[in-house]
Amino acid sequence: MHTHAYAATSHDTPLGPFEFERREPGPVDVVIDILFCGICHSDLHAAKSEWGGSTYPLVPGHEIVGRVTATGASVTKFRTGDLVGVGCMVDSCRHCTPCHEGLEQYCENGFTGTYNSPEQGTGANTHGGYSDKIVVREEFVLRVPEGMDPAAAAPLLCAGITTYSPLRHWKVGPGKKVGVVGLGGLGHMGVKLAHAMGAEVTLFTTSPGKEADARRLGADHVVLSTDAEAIKSVAGKFDVILNTVAATLDLGPYMNALALDGSMVLVGAPPGEHRGISVFNLLMGRRSLAGSLIGGIAETQEMLDFCAAHDVASDIEIIPINAVNAAYERMAKGDVKYRFVIDMQSLKDEVA
Amino acid sequence: MHTHAYAATSHDTPLGPFEFERREPGPVDVVIDILFCGICHSDLHAAKSEWGGSTYPLVPGHEIVGRVTATGASVTKFRTGDLVGVGCMVDSCRHCTPCHEGLEQYCENGFTGTYNSPEQGTGANTHGGYSDKIVVREEFVLRVPEGMDPAAAAPLLCAGITTYSPLRHWKVGPGKKVGVVGLGGLGHMGVKLAHAMGAEVTLFTTSPGKEADARRLGADHVVLSTDAEAIKSVAGKFDVILNTVAATLDLGPYMNALALDGSMVLVGAPPGEHRGISVFNLLMGRRSLAGSLIGGIAETQEMLDFCAAHDVASDIEIIPINAVNAAYERMAKGDVKYRFVIDMQSLKDEVA
Repeated sequence: MHTHAYAATSHDTPLGPFEFERREPGPVDVVIDILFCGICHSDLHAAKSEWGGSTYPLVPGHEIVGRVTATGASVTKFRTGDLVGVGCMVDSCRHCTPCHEGLEQYCENGFTGTYNSPEQGTGANTHGGYSDKIVVREEFVLRVPEGMDPAAAAPLLCAGITTYSPLRHWKVGPGKKVGVVGLGGLGHMGVKLAHAMGAEVTLFTTSPGKEADARRLGADHVVLSTDAEAIKSVAGKFDVILNTVAATLDLGPYMNALALDGSMVLVGAPPGEHRGISVFNLLMGRRSLAGSLIGGIAETQEMLDFCAAHDVASDIEIIPINAVNAAYERMAKGDVKYRFVIDMQSLKDEVA
Repeated sequence: MHTHAYAATSHDTPLGPFEFERREPGPVDVVIDILFCGICHSDLHAAKSEWGGSTYPLVPGHEIVGRVTATGASVTKFRTGDLVGVGCMVDSCRHCTPCHEGLEQYCENGFTGTYNSPEQGTGANTHGGYSDKIVVREEFVLRVPEGMDPAAAAPLLCAGITTYSPLRHWKVGPGKKVGVVGLGGLGHMGVKLAHAMGAEVTLFTTSPGKEADARRLGADHVVLSTDAEAIKSVAGKFDVILNTVAATLDLGPYMNALALDGSMVLVGAPPGEHRGISVFNLLMGRRSLAGSLIGGIAETQEMLDFCAAHDVASDIEIIPINAVNAAYERMAKGDVKYRFVIDMQSLKDEVA
């Protein structure tokens, strides 16, 4: 299927218009007309090959919301016209233990990323959501509850599930004290979701200017990470700290803020290793340092339904696709509240 | 009560004979005639002030087994003649949440160590089990099941509970794959206990000569930590890895050996920080790095009862108290299989 997109053609050139063929839909495939696609920091990392391993041309985008325009003969879950989403995965091996347990993100044979990933069977490089349409197996398509704003729902497919999954796994709920480190794309979803789950939420931020916003988003308390006394004042307080920062940090003050049996969960992937992981600190409070990667497909559906029920969505800034390079520059400086979302009508208009 | 002991009088002098007064037993106290006291690596650290903060004279020893010779008027749990034990703690604040939950080792106000610790109320420096008698509140006295070898039971009070508690907390049992890093005082108890709990046990050791011994103690598999290929061959295998090594390590290969949702639990306290804690590794398998400190009093009793029921005790080498300095030198070189235990009759004979 002839597809229009924006692609990076090398690690140091800006994204620009690109055309390619998507596979014709098979019996279990769903064809989606893309309405909106969020811009995740991973898109920038991949486009610039900052983690290595990028294959060009590279069409980023894994926060996709659109409408079904066609379904394969065996598709049972979706019909033409349905509002649907696609997140970070479009396939996995489907037979290992994690896949059977709904933990496709930990597929033992490696899940198939929505972009820059070898397609099961063909090995062809997958292309993401900065495009006008996408073809995805129905098991990896999510139902977006009708009534949700499709643009504000798009970032839920990555930023939402990446924070929702660890909050659920580490049993956040009423009576729990949760810290969220960083108020970016992930952090603002962490604050909203932990608040919606009924926890007492504290935001740790290095930006004094974000306090009012944090409270509006659901934070009960705000601690300035640069204020050593303020961090000390919350020592031993938190059951869970969700660390969304993708830069290397001194984790010491945060680990010290964990309560007995508390866990710090990392969801950001910094280019280097964190500092300040003290064995003594872990021992003295039976504390844990853990990591979590996005979330499984079933849990992603659960998250979307939870967000619809609790009126949670992303705070977004909508841009046309030709503003994507400028958006990358602003995102790299943290200048976005809190997620850029591409209105794909702009691409359709551009090629019309 | 006049007490004979061996004490360190400074960080760089050998331990030698020392006499002091223990408090007269109060209404809730138990007086114990010490039969055996294990030698823990912490004793050496404290005697030499390797962790700082040592107060001299310092009488080490927190793996104590003896017989009750007197009880205070309000004591209900013990009678003269009972075989009892005392571990790392002789008191705690008794009113904080962890104390109420049987987690005295995490007492928010700091538990009272069996030695080198300020006594509740008086602030007097506590003195440990390298002595002929000890006076302890009954809540901190453990019942040693009759029929257990009192000498081989002594190390259970520290090495036993320090490994038992995390194995239980991280739900080790049948069907679970457990790794134990290091075959010393803690490690050999970890292997025995994990095996007795029904797990499949793998020992990681740097000593090829320890393989046969490890299998005798209960290990199903032995991996030579210096063999990079051998460690790679167990990648993704373990639900729990109990790391008993008190030296700084590259944790990377062990973290990589954890299965999805696996936890590496540190129970050794190295003088510095470990290396090789990769965020990527934590994220990609929802893995955890955690710590655990000894165990609570109720759990220590549970451990002793478990050991009696499963015929588990420490492998020991019994020494007279005047061999303690030589034993420290051998222990520092790892030359003990697997715990030195002082026969306190030797002290009684010496002062007779």
